[in-house]
Amino acid sequence: MAYRDQQLKEEKVFKDPVHRYIHVRDQVIWDLIGTREFQRLRRIKQLGTTFLTFHGAEHSRFSHSLGVYEIVRRILTNFQGREHWNPDQRLLCLAAALLHDLGHGPFSHSFEKVFKLDHEDYTKAIILGGTEINAVLRRVEQGFPEKVAEVINKTYEDKLVVSLISSQIDADRMDYLLRDAYFTGVSYGHFDMERILRVMRPLEDQMVVKQSGMHAVEDYIMSRYQMYWQVYFHPVSRSAEVILTKILHRVKELHEAGYLFKHEPKHFLSFFAGKVSLVDYINLDENIVMYYFQAWINEEDEILADLCDRFTNRRLFQYVEFSPDRQIKESIELYQLFEQIGLNPEYYLVDDSSSDLPYDFYRPGEEGERLPIHLLTPKGDLLELSRASDIVESISGKKRTDHKLYYPADLIERLPDHQPEKVRIKELLGIG
Amino acid sequence: MAYRDQQLKEEKVFKDPVHRYIHVRDQVIWDLIGTREFQRLRRIKQLGTTFLTFHGAEHSRFSHSLGVYEIVRRILTNFQGREHWNPDQRLLCLAAALLHDLGHGPFSHSFEKVFKLDHEDYTKAIILGGTEINAVLRRVEQGFPEKVAEVINKTYEDKLVVSLISSQIDADRMDYLLRDAYFTGVSYGHFDMERILRVMRPLEDQMVVKQSGMHAVEDYIMSRYQMYWQVYFHPVSRSAEVILTKILHRVKELHEAGYLFKHEPKHFLSFFAGKVSLVDYINLDENIVMYYFQAWINEEDEILADLCDRFTNRRLFQYVEFSPDRQIKESIELYQLFEQIGLNPEYYLVDDSSSDLPYDFYRPGEEGERLPIHLLTPKGDLLELSRASDIVESISGKKRTDHKLYYPADLIERLPDHQPEKVRIKELLGIG
Amino acid sequence: MAYRDQQLKEEKVFKDPVHRYIHVRDQVIWDLIGTREFQRLRRIKQLGTTFLTFHGAEHSRFSHSLGVYEIVRRILTNFQGREHWNPDQRLLCLAAALLHDLGHGPFSHSFEKVFKLDHEDYTKAIILGGTEINAVLRRVEQGFPEKVAEVINKTYEDKLVVSLISSQIDADRMDYLLRDAYFTGVSYGHFDMERILRVMRPLEDQMVVKQSGMHAVEDYIMSRYQMYWQVYFHPVSRSAEVILTKILHRVKELHEAGYLFKHEPKHFLSFFAGKVSLVDYINLDENIVMYYFQAWINEEDEILADLCDRFTNRRLFQYVEFSPDRQIKESIELYQLFEQIGLNPEYYLVDDSSSDLPYDFYRPGEEGERLPIHLLTPKGDLLELSRASDIVESISGKKRTDHKLYYPADLIERLPDHQPEKVRIKELLGIG
Amino acid sequence: MAYRDQQLKEEKVFKDPVHRYIHVRDQVIWDLIGTREFQRLRRIKQLGTTFLTFHGAEHSRFSHSLGVYEIVRRILTNFQGREHWNPDQRLLCLAAALLHDLGHGPFSHSFEKVFKLDHEDYTKAIILGGTEINAVLRRVEQGFPEKVAEVINKTYEDKLVVSLISSQIDADRMDYLLRDAYFTGVSYGHFDMERILRVMRPLEDQMVVKQSGMHAVEDYIMSRYQMYWQVYFHPVSRSAEVILTKILHRVKELHEAGYLFKHEPKHFLSFFAGKVSLVDYINLDENIVMYYFQAWINEEDEILADLCDRFTNRRLFQYVEFSPDRQIKESIELYQLFEQIGLNPEYYLVDDSSSDLPYDFYRPGEEGERLPIHLLTPKGDLLELSRASDIVESISGKKRTDHKLYYPADLIERLPDHQPEKVRIKELLGIG
Repeated sequence: MAYRDQQLKEEKVFKDPVHRYIHVRDQVIWDLIGTREFQRLRRIKQLGTTFLTFHGAEHSRFSHSLGVYEIVRRILTNFQGREHWNPDQRLLCLAAALLHDLGHGPFSHSFEKVFKLDHEDYTKAIILGGTEINAVLRRVEQGFPEKVAEVINKTYEDKLVVSLISSQIDADRMDYLLRDAYFTGVSYGHFDMERILRVMRPLEDQMVVKQSGMHAVEDYIMSRYQMYWQVYFHPVSRSAEVILTKILHRVKELHEAGYLFKHEPKHFLSFFAGKVSLVDYINLDENIVMYYFQAWINEEDEILADLCDRFTNRRLFQYVEFSPDRQIKESIELYQLFEQIGLNPEYYLVDDSSSDLPYDFYRPGEEGERLPIHLLTPKGDLLELSRASDIVESISGKKRTDHKLYYPADLIERLPDHQPEKVRIKELLGIG
Repeated sequence: MAYRDQQLKEEKVFKDPVHRYIHVRDQVIWDLIGTREFQRLRRIKQLGTTFLTFHGAEHSRFSHSLGVYEIVRRILTNFQGREHWNPDQRLLCLAAALLHDLGHGPFSHSFEKVFKLDHEDYTKAIILGGTEINAVLRRVEQGFPEKVAEVINKTYEDKLVVSLISSQIDADRMDYLLRDAYFTGVSYGHFDMERILRVMRPLEDQMVVKQSGMHAVEDYIMSRYQMYWQVYFHPVSRSAEVILTKILHRVKELHEAGYLFKHEPKHFLSFFAGKVSLVDYINLDENIVMYYFQAWINEEDEILADLCDRFTNRRLFQYVEFSPDRQIKESIELYQLFEQIGLNPEYYLVDDSSSDLPYDFYRPGEEGERLPIHLLTPKGDLLELSRASDIVESISGKKRTDHKLYYPADLIERLPDHQPEKVRIKELLGIG
Repeated sequence: MAYRDQQLKEEKVFKDPVHRYIHVRDQVIWDLIGTREFQRLRRIKQLGTTFLTFHGAEHSRFSHSLGVYEIVRRILTNFQGREHWNPDQRLLCLAAALLHDLGHGPFSHSFEKVFKLDHEDYTKAIILGGTEINAVLRRVEQGFPEKVAEVINKTYEDKLVVSLISSQIDADRMDYLLRDAYFTGVSYGHFDMERILRVMRPLEDQMVVKQSGMHAVEDYIMSRYQMYWQVYFHPVSRSAEVILTKILHRVKELHEAGYLFKHEPKHFLSFFAGKVSLVDYINLDENIVMYYFQAWINEEDEILADLCDRFTNRRLFQYVEFSPDRQIKESIELYQLFEQIGLNPEYYLVDDSSSDLPYDFYRPGEEGERLPIHLLTPKGDLLELSRASDIVESISGKKRTDHKLYYPADLIERLPDHQPEKVRIKELLGIG
Repeated sequence: MAYRDQQLKEEKVFKDPVHRYIHVRDQVIWDLIGTREFQRLRRIKQLGTTFLTFHGAEHSRFSHSLGVYEIVRRILTNFQGREHWNPDQRLLCLAAALLHDLGHGPFSHSFEKVFKLDHEDYTKAIILGGTEINAVLRRVEQGFPEKVAEVINKTYEDKLVVSLISSQIDADRMDYLLRDAYFTGVSYGHFDMERILRVMRPLEDQMVVKQSGMHAVEDYIMSRYQMYWQVYFHPVSRSAEVILTKILHRVKELHEAGYLFKHEPKHFLSFFAGKVSLVDYINLDENIVMYYFQAWINEEDEILADLCDRFTNRRLFQYVEFSPDRQIKESIELYQLFEQIGLNPEYYLVDDSSSDLPYDFYRPGEEGERLPIHLLTPKGDLLELSRASDIVESISGKKRTDHKLYYPADLIERLPDHQPEKVRIKELLGIG
């Protein structure tokens, strides 16, 4: 039997707290899970620094990846035998679902920002490069790795396949909302996925949802909205993120300035140089990063040592609301005050903003254009979600942004109470 | 106000998926949580290698420790104002609950076995040594660190206080059963803790449970039984444990033999020497260990490299049932066969056994003697649990043991099919 | 000890699937629960005809009433010792919470509509009349029954007390959303009540919510919105409601026309006469009503017999969307066609509309004016919810209405296929 | 297309709180659910008088019957294509599962006891008699109603089919444990049904369970054990049951004595006469029974009036432990004392016992012989459950019985404190 059709003698199941069980029957899927590149995802947290705010959020991208696979598997079981659905795409969909996050590195957000990387490029590189993943995919079929990469890259010609893992209601989002809600323990984030899966239907170029399931979709959109503001953008996690970013900046800066590290940043050198090899990239997981941070607590450079201590031992920056437009003058004054008290404002006075667009209809040509969710009416017509749902209509296209200014409250507090800079800083920060 | 009585201006809450919220009002508790020794527990998994079997089990000892604290806090709220309860013990109980696992190192079980350590000694050392934890405790009261250590060590004179975290139905066990069930996603492990907390009563030297709550206690005992055999002793996790232990053995052996490491086991040297300093111990967390394992995949020594690759990339040993008494001859033969095919049986043929005693009444003088659970009858008498409960009686004192033999199936399979050693090995292992 | 202060020797607990346990310590509360008027609530379903759509919704007003009591009990535990909170109001609040639905009759909605009753008048009458409830309340204090009635009637002078059970985020609504979601099994309807209870604060004339809990309140508002449209206004339940209403109409009409019942509507006579005594009202529960409906299946009057059969055996009317303004002409034509085929349109062609206002800010002077939910800012100011929450703002004050037309599809289908009236009726109903 | 193969155009789903959704595709099943005999199950509570102890337990046999159907449907989806499974039996299994409780009357237990009925006879009678159910079944196939009746009666030749709804681990038990746990809100009663369903396998004459699923089965057995003693045999529910039984006895006795009822027991006459017609039986639901009880509160006969008041308004008997063997003399004395104080002991001094056998292996020839649960080993052998499971072995075959004596504590308390009979009665009952 062709490798692509080989079934395991006995179905394998993973116990999963979110989907109860994850079922694997295909030899190919089983082999992909067993590769070192996939196992590596166990060493990368799904939510980066969020565990410092919600202590339950210690789950990895490994479990999320299995979850996305499982959701796609269930969707396809439902699609079986329906018009518009080509069963030959099944294995491609499953593989793309499983591997869609393969290129994530440790604390991706910060690394990508500082080193100008894109995890999607690395997903592609791992799938197409000289990896165990690639070897498994190549056995399936000539050109199969390329197809998987295209699906993840959203350039695959069959847009229905793409929409399974990249649309405003895809398997990726459904899994992470449910999973992150479960592990953080928050009470929002739940919605009736079973219902949504039952009413999903394949069309020519997209997945749609039967109109009778609209309310479950509304619930999903609202959950997403709440999760973004309650969990993903939580200011305490962002504080850790800010510190992490500044550590990376500092290491790079020190390296470029010829600083003599007690503990050389060997694993980071290719990142500094801007040419990260696949092997280097794969080797860098969160254990490695944390190892360095612990070591650097003992560096001579005070900024690096302090920031590494803060991150390792959770001594985070405090924050205040901060509106960038209104406060330019105050910002400059704060910046100067920090310099005067000997705190490098580059590292100790950091503004950070988060913004989210909970749902959007199609705005062709605009940046970040997004494909809308379509409902399938009983008569077979398509109806864009926000036209049918009052709730979704009311939040549709409304971008919300949150600005915060981060600073080390402990170091400010340590100054003598009557030092004028301290008084003025607290006044400007509104923390009298 | 004395430090011990200081309350936070605003109660702090941690969102917890198991207990919903963890509440902190005492400044002392808040300060303890903020210490670097307590934060370090975030870098040590609650269930060691279990995440390789149940992928959800990535939670840390940090969250468990908060959970035990919260349970004790709730018990004491219930005890408030009751006879036999001395409210002056409150802070001591809370601190001991929070800190009871402080001395756990990475993958404790294996480290303790190989290096003859006891995590309880380190808990004590951290509490009494020159640590941030000690500094906080000392501020409470002269001799307070010692008291906390005694409670955890079960030598504290007030046995009621001890029983809160060390008895057959203590806050420690209640938290880990519920928490581990939650994160693995298994359906056993649940019991009605709220009910048990409501019927707990303080007596002179122990916590007891009102007889009306007996069935909730039965349920707890059965959950415990199921969790041991389904989760804690799962043969796949034990396979990872076996490999881990063998890695540590190998490193020690190589070090002692003067082997030249590409990547020196610096963090392990004091472990080899048998005199681990507090600083070394605290610095060694799971990130550090995993860093070394990844590095050692490239060592010259084939055994070390292979075992580290297996652990890092989850290429575990297979196993078969193995009864030690009946198979001595076969064991010897297997041992020799492994040598013949070039697999060092010291590292590649490992027997491992697990055993559990689900509940026991008091057997004075016997090894591992355990204090029984007592029910409080409506008339005020005490009744030992197994005398009142048929179910508990039926499993009481019945130790169950499981023996398995672990080996690298992949390396055996690679041998030519007709090689006589391969045939005989498979025959002896019963894996024809 | 005064009756109002008497505590039970041992706290009583009710196992409750929604709040886990309901706790009773006051002798007064225990005695109220034991009265026949309160026990009668077991014989009245919380959701009327909804069990014919969601088969799990068979729960009674008894369990809801206990739930509201329990929520108020928890709120007051939190209020204890806070400014603005007068602990002397405690028992009054608990009693009012427990008894707020006492006057509900069987299938209240239909009975109130047909017989022009108001269940709130009966709540008042039971509390103030010669009932067991009144006897218990009178023992508490001279004038206590009157106070309880005023709280329920929203005329009590202390508006903080009133707001506990009658505001846009009161104990009544919180319980029924959670409870109805639990018993129907729908996945919306959940919100983090524990969080809301923790951030509720008493002010002079209302309960407010700390701003930090805003998102939990948003979630509550959204749950409420979803429950209304998914459950409470479900068109199938409304179909049963329509039939029920028409049965009552028919019985009244027949009675007034001097029709000779095989089974006399004895329990209904005082309802027809418009002067329902307290005893008659209390005696009429859903068992009694269902008894009559079963009996009337055998009446000579075909309409009554048919409608009773439909309700008893769930043979409901079908429905189509129906916009009242646009279809006057068609309505008249339909009406005439129904007459032509021998179906009395008064009973067999029924329009029904439902509408809901999910949340509203204060619109003084307008009909149904509602007190808004106020957030308490960290600085102690009040902020109306829709000004702080984008989500709530977006649905605030937006009334939504749904119109449906109900008819017996089975009786239409039975007509010969080519009968012109059948063809035209199906055309007008759009059910070709 | 033959009626037996007709599928609904669109699958129908029922929202179910226990199984999330209940799926119906077969026209036959849909038609069966719509019959008046099946809809009648909505008017019969699943747990009889248990709602007077656990207020959430107001669910009906209707929802349980749908649940059993759904479980069998899922089992058969799993059986599809497996050896030993004959797909032609599918509809028969589904119909038998749905209809297995059809013959239950109101408060079955008491009615069966007093009137010497067996609900299984009525299930058979409804399936085979002139009912809507029979009409639907007959359309499927000549002899189909008989087959369904045989399956429910356990006499059907294909024992595998029988075992789906009648064995020690059948769909009936699995549904009621989960459902009753859900509605009462107790925390036991849960087990991993999804796991059990996945490891069930058809054999020639029974369903078996793969050995790998043993622990889930253990959990199921333990849940069953806890539910029996915590819920089903709860002494308070049994108190209501005792009163109910005594009401029926009294009515019968009065009727036979020629008592002139104010409110004639018309619906009961055929029960008294011992020849209950199918129509009479079907008409008698719990609404009807409760209607009579309310009416009889006003009867002249004091015993009947009192007992009906007790049942309707939940004024139950108290109870004490009572061991029948040791207390004969005391029993006689109590009996006489009750007569002396004017309480007819026939109605006011009632002993009641409950007993349960949690699991049993096969004991051929013994009364109530039960087919054991068999595990399927990896090698294909069968292993009786209690031989593989320590836990099950330990409770296997151990019958446990509980005896209680019920009496009206309120009427005893009303006697003057020094009346010697009161003193002696309290002494004998041990309620000093």
